Amino acid sequence: MLEKVDLSKSIQKKEYDDLTGELRVRMGELQRRAWKLDIPIMVVFEGWHASGMTGIINRFLMPLNPMGFELYTTGNPCPQEEQKPLIWRFWTKIPPKGKIAIFDRSWYRRALLEHLHEGAAEEDVTKCFNGLAYFERQLADDGYLIVKFFLHISKEKQEERYEEIKKKGIPLLLVKEEENDSASKYERYLPLVERMLEKTDIQHAPWTIVESDDLNFATVKVMQTFIQSIEEKIRTIEDKRPVSELQSAQMQASRPLNSSVLKTTDMGVSLSREEYKEKKKAYLKDLESLQYELFRQGRPVILVFEGWDASGKGGSIRRLAQIMNPRLYKVIPVSAPSDTELARHYLWRFYNEIPEAGHVSIFDRSWYGRVLVERVEGLCSDQEWRRAYREINEFEEVLTNYGTLIIKFWLHIDKEEQLHRFRERETTAHKQWKITPDDWKNRDKWDMYEEAVDEMLQRTSTTYAPWTIVGSNDKFYSRVRVLQVVVETLERELKVK
Amino acid sequence: MLEKVDLSKSIQKKEYDDLTGELRVRMGELQRRAWKLDIPIMVVFEGWHASGMTGIINRFLMPLNPMGFELYTTGNPCPQEEQKPLIWRFWTKIPPKGKIAIFDRSWYRRALLEHLHEGAAEEDVTKCFNGLAYFERQLADDGYLIVKFFLHISKEKQEERYEEIKKKGIPLLLVKEEENDSASKYERYLPLVERMLEKTDIQHAPWTIVESDDLNFATVKVMQTFIQSIEEKIRTIEDKRPVSELQSAQMQASRPLNSSVLKTTDMGVSLSREEYKEKKKAYLKDLESLQYELFRQGRPVILVFEGWDASGKGGSIRRLAQIMNPRLYKVIPVSAPSDTELARHYLWRFYNEIPEAGHVSIFDRSWYGRVLVERVEGLCSDQEWRRAYREINEFEEVLTNYGTLIIKFWLHIDKEEQLHRFRERETTAHKQWKITPDDWKNRDKWDMYEEAVDEMLQRTSTTYAPWTIVGSNDKFYSRVRVLQVVVETLERELKVK
Repeated sequence: MLEKVDLSKSIQKKEYDDLTGELRVRMGELQRRAWKLDIPIMVVFEGWHASGMTGIINRFLMPLNPMGFELYTTGNPCPQEEQKPLIWRFWTKIPPKGKIAIFDRSWYRRALLEHLHEGAAEEDVTKCFNGLAYFERQLADDGYLIVKFFLHISKEKQEERYEEIKKKGIPLLLVKEEENDSASKYERYLPLVERMLEKTDIQHAPWTIVESDDLNFATVKVMQTFIQSIEEKIRTIEDKRPVSELQSAQMQASRPLNSSVLKTTDMGVSLSREEYKEKKKAYLKDLESLQYELFRQGRPVILVFEGWDASGKGGSIRRLAQIMNPRLYKVIPVSAPSDTELARHYLWRFYNEIPEAGHVSIFDRSWYGRVLVERVEGLCSDQEWRRAYREINEFEEVLTNYGTLIIKFWLHIDKEEQLHRFRERETTAHKQWKITPDDWKNRDKWDMYEEAVDEMLQRTSTTYAPWTIVGSNDKFYSRVRVLQVVVETLERELKVK
Repeated sequence: MLEKVDLSKSIQKKEYDDLTGELRVRMGELQRRAWKLDIPIMVVFEGWHASGMTGIINRFLMPLNPMGFELYTTGNPCPQEEQKPLIWRFWTKIPPKGKIAIFDRSWYRRALLEHLHEGAAEEDVTKCFNGLAYFERQLADDGYLIVKFFLHISKEKQEERYEEIKKKGIPLLLVKEEENDSASKYERYLPLVERMLEKTDIQHAPWTIVESDDLNFATVKVMQTFIQSIEEKIRTIEDKRPVSELQSAQMQASRPLNSSVLKTTDMGVSLSREEYKEKKKAYLKDLESLQYELFRQGRPVILVFEGWDASGKGGSIRRLAQIMNPRLYKVIPVSAPSDTELARHYLWRFYNEIPEAGHVSIFDRSWYGRVLVERVEGLCSDQEWRRAYREINEFEEVLTNYGTLIIKFWLHIDKEEQLHRFRERETTAHKQWKITPDDWKNRDKWDMYEEAVDEMLQRTSTTYAPWTIVGSNDKFYSRVRVLQVVVETLERELKVK
């Protein structure tokens, strides 16, 4: 692929000035149009060392309004970044609607440097590139425009530029040690780069190979490609094209379910106060030491609490947390998204909260809101929540691949028990703040929620992140059951028993 | 101070349970009230190693709604943090209105570990603590409640606890190497800690020494103090107390100025196109290598561009940036604050954008908006903008102490020239987006802005961050003058000439 590229193309100064004069004006116009149309744009620059990337990027930036873009220079990870899956670094940097995020090197380079090496097993390569492809496809599905450039130069040109850089005394920025012994790099990386370009040249985020021996030619090609990509994207939006085949296939998949897992939940379970106290004490003792074992083994843990209003999510979480070291856990209550969150892919806010290695994130409600409240209340489109099952499974797969333990609870109470608890909240002074008109409104839609919950439990119970449904009419039983599942899962996964 | 503290106090389990039952309910209530009243709260925990801090903090957290607080555990800085002034780490973490930020160790511990040592010169200690005091006073002035705890234990208790920890096999979290040789620590740090507590026990953010040999006693004291502090703060707000003496003194200071620096600007300066091209080229060449020298020396640089609408800020910035390496500079256009920004102290958004060592942040408008547009348009209170002169000078002092170069430009055009440029924008197709009704509205208030600009230039021109007023009726002159000042300042400060 790369070896057949004609690198002799060039553009003279005079022609360059003429051409880019127009291109610059057009870029400014299109930036403003995309902004108005709320299109989020990601521009990726990859390429060989000394491919002139910084020069090309700076020329590319000049016509753009700095208010509308953010440039990210991707270097070596800082310690915090090393404690999270690779793609986390980039999820946290996706632009809001209408804005542009530009990546001076990206997830590709980091995947090559941190996860792959020449001769990596086909399976690892595939797994790694799959993770990147999920990322890009999820964003594209959400309306993001992704433009990817690979700046290609010849080995000779590279050597020539190294000499220049040395002569000028320019400090090498962002250079990792292993990248520094540049001599043998080009040939060593070529086959891996070829594979990367082939495997990730996908329909919704294709690569553009940019011949970069000549800086003028490269700049013009980058500008033109960028312009064409936005124009094409705008056309797609304005044409209001019918749902693509892929998407309709997804919608097909999500047809009514004829079975219910919820209905099979055993609701008759309960514990006496004494049993409760005793068992709770024992599990908490286990948990206290398990958290340090987690830390030692560097495993991140995610606990998800979903359940009906007043099913005891908060209470269960507090009983768990009371024994834990606050340096190791964090409770993340999830409510309606803020404006900042609404302007981005809905998974963004959750990527922002995933735990570091050895730490625990406890979610009081979670990303499952997409297929529960957002579905039932019509806060997202049909297409969006139907798509979400796959997105969520992929999200959890990426985290699991990194070593994250994901434990998910649905706390299940019946309608009568909920009514009883609502009434109690209304009449107890220091609990009144817990009950709002929304709670009553949600209750009226019990059946619709039940359908959504059932579909969620079935479509997102995976081998790597299964749901546990807890019959929670009895608080004592419910709390102990949660503790038990957490403790037993940790013991099994950490191999301490 | 510390040595006289009676550490024998303790509370038995039964009494503890009774006491904290009530305290917990009260904490929840007060959190909700402070939330409603938009009071931002910062709680600082400092103390000896093994003072039981994590246990006390976890008990303290339990009654609080996790939706309303954020816990920050302060450990060793990551590389990015090491590239910025110490206080930056904490400025970026201040809570929005109504929320609580809790610090498990804070700027105090980091100041001790990173900047001070036994026998540090009195001057350095003072400078360091001044920086911390600015931070707290600026927040307190803005309505923040700051509650600081020092958990105090005896040397004997510390040793006893080290033994326990060892026996239980709990991994030491967040421990820096030098902290690890705990043996001689207590006595070595005692005098420095004493000095710290004395110097920073200030009216608006006093220390509470918490006797922590007994965990129950410590927890109760922490809860009670927290409750009293919020109650006191709420009383202050509800009493609508008169402006304090300190504040009225500040307002006094800000009386009308009888002189104008603006009026003395030479507006007759201009350059021919040829002179412009030639000089620009020469300065850009200098700048190109100076940026790498900056990087080598690790100096951060801030360029501030203020000026009338259409005075050429954007154009000047583009001419500067075109030669720079995009990995080393960033343009930060400042417009109306977002909701997230409005919910915090106004300097927060600017602390978020300060450059790392060796990097350049170019501000297209800046924190000076507080004393310009916010003053003139009544977007903040009188008291707030009057207070801002001191806040800004302190902000720039803190950055300068860290080694930051601050270069500030006021681009000055006269009223006729502005009219001319507005008209041109209206009639040139690709410039029309640059002119908005707001521009005409601001123009109507020219005289009020002039007064504000004059006061700003006089009150915030400091020896460490002086203003340069540039007569900008002629764009060629203006752009070259900006380049010249930047290049000459860098040469002088980097000692390359």
